[in-house]
Amino acid sequence: MTDRPKTPILDRVNVPADMKRLTDDELQQLADELRAETISAVSETGGHLGAGLGVVELTVALHAVFDTPKDKLIWDVSHQTYPHKILTGRRDRIRTLRQKDGLSGFTKRSESPYDPFGAAHSSTSISAALGFSVARDLGGATPEGLGDGIAVIGDGAISAGMAYEAMNNAGHLGKRLIVILNDNEMSIAPPVGAMSSYLSRLYAGDPFQELKAAAKGAVSLLPEPFREGAKRAKDLLKHSVVGGTLFEELGFSYLGPIDGHDLEQLLPVLRTVKARARGPILIHAITKKGKGYAPAETARDKGHGVAKFNVVTGEQKKTPSNAPSYTKVFAQSLIDEASRDDKIVAITAAMPDGTGLDLFAERYPSRCFDVGIAEQHGVTFAAGLAAGGMKPFCAIYSTFLQRGYDQVVHDVALQRLPVRFAIDRAGLVGADGATHAGAFDIGYMTNLPGMVVMAAADEAELVHMVATATAYNDGPIAFRYPRGEGVGVEMPERGKFLEIGKGRIIREGSQVAILSFGTRLSEVEKAAEALAAKGITPTIADARFAKPLDRDMILDLVSNHEALITIEEGAIGGFASHVADLLANEGVFDRGLKFRSMVLPDIFIDQASPKDMYDSAAMNAEHIEAKVLDVMGIADISKRA
Amino acid sequence: MTDRPKTPILDRVNVPADMKRLTDDELQQLADELRAETISAVSETGGHLGAGLGVVELTVALHAVFDTPKDKLIWDVSHQTYPHKILTGRRDRIRTLRQKDGLSGFTKRSESPYDPFGAAHSSTSISAALGFSVARDLGGATPEGLGDGIAVIGDGAISAGMAYEAMNNAGHLGKRLIVILNDNEMSIAPPVGAMSSYLSRLYAGDPFQELKAAAKGAVSLLPEPFREGAKRAKDLLKHSVVGGTLFEELGFSYLGPIDGHDLEQLLPVLRTVKARARGPILIHAITKKGKGYAPAETARDKGHGVAKFNVVTGEQKKTPSNAPSYTKVFAQSLIDEASRDDKIVAITAAMPDGTGLDLFAERYPSRCFDVGIAEQHGVTFAAGLAAGGMKPFCAIYSTFLQRGYDQVVHDVALQRLPVRFAIDRAGLVGADGATHAGAFDIGYMTNLPGMVVMAAADEAELVHMVATATAYNDGPIAFRYPRGEGVGVEMPERGKFLEIGKGRIIREGSQVAILSFGTRLSEVEKAAEALAAKGITPTIADARFAKPLDRDMILDLVSNHEALITIEEGAIGGFASHVADLLANEGVFDRGLKFRSMVLPDIFIDQASPKDMYDSAAMNAEHIEAKVLDVMGIADISKRA
Repeated sequence: MTDRPKTPILDRVNVPADMKRLTDDELQQLADELRAETISAVSETGGHLGAGLGVVELTVALHAVFDTPKDKLIWDVSHQTYPHKILTGRRDRIRTLRQKDGLSGFTKRSESPYDPFGAAHSSTSISAALGFSVARDLGGATPEGLGDGIAVIGDGAISAGMAYEAMNNAGHLGKRLIVILNDNEMSIAPPVGAMSSYLSRLYAGDPFQELKAAAKGAVSLLPEPFREGAKRAKDLLKHSVVGGTLFEELGFSYLGPIDGHDLEQLLPVLRTVKARARGPILIHAITKKGKGYAPAETARDKGHGVAKFNVVTGEQKKTPSNAPSYTKVFAQSLIDEASRDDKIVAITAAMPDGTGLDLFAERYPSRCFDVGIAEQHGVTFAAGLAAGGMKPFCAIYSTFLQRGYDQVVHDVALQRLPVRFAIDRAGLVGADGATHAGAFDIGYMTNLPGMVVMAAADEAELVHMVATATAYNDGPIAFRYPRGEGVGVEMPERGKFLEIGKGRIIREGSQVAILSFGTRLSEVEKAAEALAAKGITPTIADARFAKPLDRDMILDLVSNHEALITIEEGAIGGFASHVADLLANEGVFDRGLKFRSMVLPDIFIDQASPKDMYDSAAMNAEHIEAKVLDVMGIADISKRA
Repeated sequence: MTDRPKTPILDRVNVPADMKRLTDDELQQLADELRAETISAVSETGGHLGAGLGVVELTVALHAVFDTPKDKLIWDVSHQTYPHKILTGRRDRIRTLRQKDGLSGFTKRSESPYDPFGAAHSSTSISAALGFSVARDLGGATPEGLGDGIAVIGDGAISAGMAYEAMNNAGHLGKRLIVILNDNEMSIAPPVGAMSSYLSRLYAGDPFQELKAAAKGAVSLLPEPFREGAKRAKDLLKHSVVGGTLFEELGFSYLGPIDGHDLEQLLPVLRTVKARARGPILIHAITKKGKGYAPAETARDKGHGVAKFNVVTGEQKKTPSNAPSYTKVFAQSLIDEASRDDKIVAITAAMPDGTGLDLFAERYPSRCFDVGIAEQHGVTFAAGLAAGGMKPFCAIYSTFLQRGYDQVVHDVALQRLPVRFAIDRAGLVGADGATHAGAFDIGYMTNLPGMVVMAAADEAELVHMVATATAYNDGPIAFRYPRGEGVGVEMPERGKFLEIGKGRIIREGSQVAILSFGTRLSEVEKAAEALAAKGITPTIADARFAKPLDRDMILDLVSNHEALITIEEGAIGGFASHVADLLANEGVFDRGLKFRSMVLPDIFIDQASPKDMYDSAAMNAEHIEAKVLDVMGIADISKRA
């Protein structure tokens, strides 16, 4: 641990109200101290570093000018809120970030009244802020009062369809609403899409020299000195002549671009907006992800997500891995298949690194499509590619595929188009917590007619599932796999085709059969070892497919065992439901069967290590062992004959 | 039936290739005949009339100029495709529209190669067309060849986030892609939102006098005579000075607006575009919904959806109803509750009529929000309203709520915000077919921690559920109800609060218990009457809640009956799965229970009457009766075929 930074001003600020007594110069010093404290904290915890550093001045300015928590400050995605948390009464716990029982890495309503609306998925902030604005006008209330709705949204996030829908509605309603566009030309990966180019044109080639808050409609909001000092960027001038920024077309006043690291610009602009804004206004602030910390500024991802690190050198303390990550295995398998099949194309929604498709794109740049934060479009675009004879692999995290669910139903499944869904981050994900849990996809995919749904039990299985999805062209197919490392099994030279709807017996036993779908298999095997020491040898099967089910295997299992236990890394309504449906309608329950299902519990589980989260879910080896003993009615081993 | 119109030119056109031999004058006559034929057909079938009449000339021009089915013509929503179907080999079946075993009311891949991508939900066409365009460039193929991707999209549909995402991606990729914006200032209801105002400004106050295809970037595409003749609308001129239409900001060439009913504009523009377009281009065509048929043109909804009608008078032959529709009961109940609770607000995503919220808006205009085709925003906007102390009712059809699923999970359920989901069109919907079936919501809502999920068994129950949702403020709550009329039960003066998680016994019997969730209850009662004649008296219960389950009632039922049958108007993974989970983990199956679940079958069911569709699903009274007999092992006495 390095020495903590000296923070005399920050030490006097426990909540934002304490900032009201500070001079502008002191606010500048506060910002510097806040940056140092943020770097220091994240060096101990790891987490999202670059995004927070990019909004240090903005965080200070917003809390200095507005009246939080009465004013509802909503951070989009909210992985950039570590400085916000430090300023809002949570500094004493900031070194527990993203840990079990610690602060969430995102805003969270239950954590603080300064977090009026939680986030983690992108592009929700304008909708929520508009909700608060409208509620205020209709007599709504919150315990802290109800002031302005303020959304802070990045340039990547604002390019998503949902943000556009919100602006379209806000422009129509015309209520007072403040949107800060935090434009750092960088979401997780560099943003893509025409909107991004458009934003760049708004300030292209014009370095900040003085306040440039300018465009028509917004300039009148400024006090005289600023109006006189305002100097427009050439490109901005061009637009303002016709009132023509895209945001103004949508009914917003547009103000900017301004330097989001310059409190001498931020403070007067925000004060003026607070005093005078009517209707929706967008303030375009240019910031730099990782600002003020060289190792982050110079990193390719601008310090997006980091492990614990040495503050002086920036060197991260990454634990060496024992096995390749599932993400990397997916990417390498897909590259391998693509080398033999030129119809394979890949789609990501702004997550090339997270999905491993950055590796695919390096090898096959023209066959990889980053559609931006646009899961709805991404899925239907993939459907169009499939209809055009390609073999699209749509690689989207389980939790984000929820964004494209209707498109999976309506454009893919209904038309039985052979889109391949590579569902990463299935199950519980660790430090990102409940918002990123991949809990629901088994249910929401297996209920669709014609959908094939697989889960990899280990990294070698994933290789085979990529091969299977490549070869299967009769309709849509999905395969899910978790975040993190594989279990270290021997890897096949090349993926083989798995017969659709066929599982495999891992170990023959008696009395109890455990039917696993996904990577709990290794925990099942651990449980079996512990049980073996007690003279109990359950049969273990890997379902591989939740749809179609391996009827023969399952009916065979129940005919030879007195109990069947299913386990899956998903919520109720998934694999176990399909098994139960089969057993019920085959009349298996008529004659009695000890059937138990182990699914994720009916709660949202807060961040912790994946192991700890699965402890909370009661889905680790010891829980499986206990379930077996319980179903056999021999919780006390000594009583067994 | 009125006399069929005379259609000498149309009679010579079986497929679009036949149009290549026609002169432009003949194409004009073809359009007139096509309009008459469309009116004649819909007068016999009912269906979507206004939208098709609005695109008659566009349909003729597109098929005359492009090479379908090699060129991929994709109609957004596609309820406007009756003229397209008539021109593409389906005229002989056009009078079977929307009927069992007849033509679908939408495009459908399995119906015709001229329907390269099916639709029914809005705003998917640009994504799909882009998929085809990219596939072509990468060597993809279809049996009909693979030419241009062409999307025809309405002004309502293009304002949805998904369409924006697609344009953003298309502008970035720069592939040749043709988008026709069919701007009739009318989706189902008049469109709302800033985008709509923007589009209006593009041609405000400037009637069509001559070809106005103009803006920068597009004008160069035009042949000399058109370039000279081009006269810009004042507003357009303003934009084109800076290359500044919103579409151009997104990387599209913009061409228009042109008169979408004038073949003398449409044909040369499309020919020029076909010959010269590179990159994405948007052609802005102004049309009139219901064009050319006075009763449609003058109707408030422009003849959006009509019953069979008299062609001469336009009078529709609507069957008198015996009971109020569920939609209307919902609306009236909500109005009633809102009269006593000023925190109630209502949200619709461009479906004020369909959801009944038009009635609510009449009474409480400031408390009703039509957010446009924007389910994602609508749900999170509702979450913001709830966080601001309001009581939002988010009224979205089951099938369209799929569009906002991630927002239900991430913004509502995770934060346990008291948003009320009024889920209309639950279950099978009749003539709109598989694309509009509300099949999946029970599963995708009940799997969410903290969500309360109800289904109304009849229209009186719906009144109570609106009251219950109003009073319940501890978290999110959903209630589902079907399309169509209620069953005619006596209506309560006022809704009463239903105890959360408690069902009700409808009829005490023995041996077999039938546990119904939703409006199959009336079929269950019919089945029970038939069974009574055979001396069998099943117990009937109405679950009311799929979540939380009425554990006591269910465990009581299974302890007193040898068999339990559940029934619900939804796919696997819903109510029955929760019941099975309870029974399994309570050990009920250990000692044997005849448990059966009746859920929607694992297929997409084509349009027919709701009764016929439930026959296909095997969920009508006779099927319930057969299920009871089967589970009792006395199927032989029924002797059903």
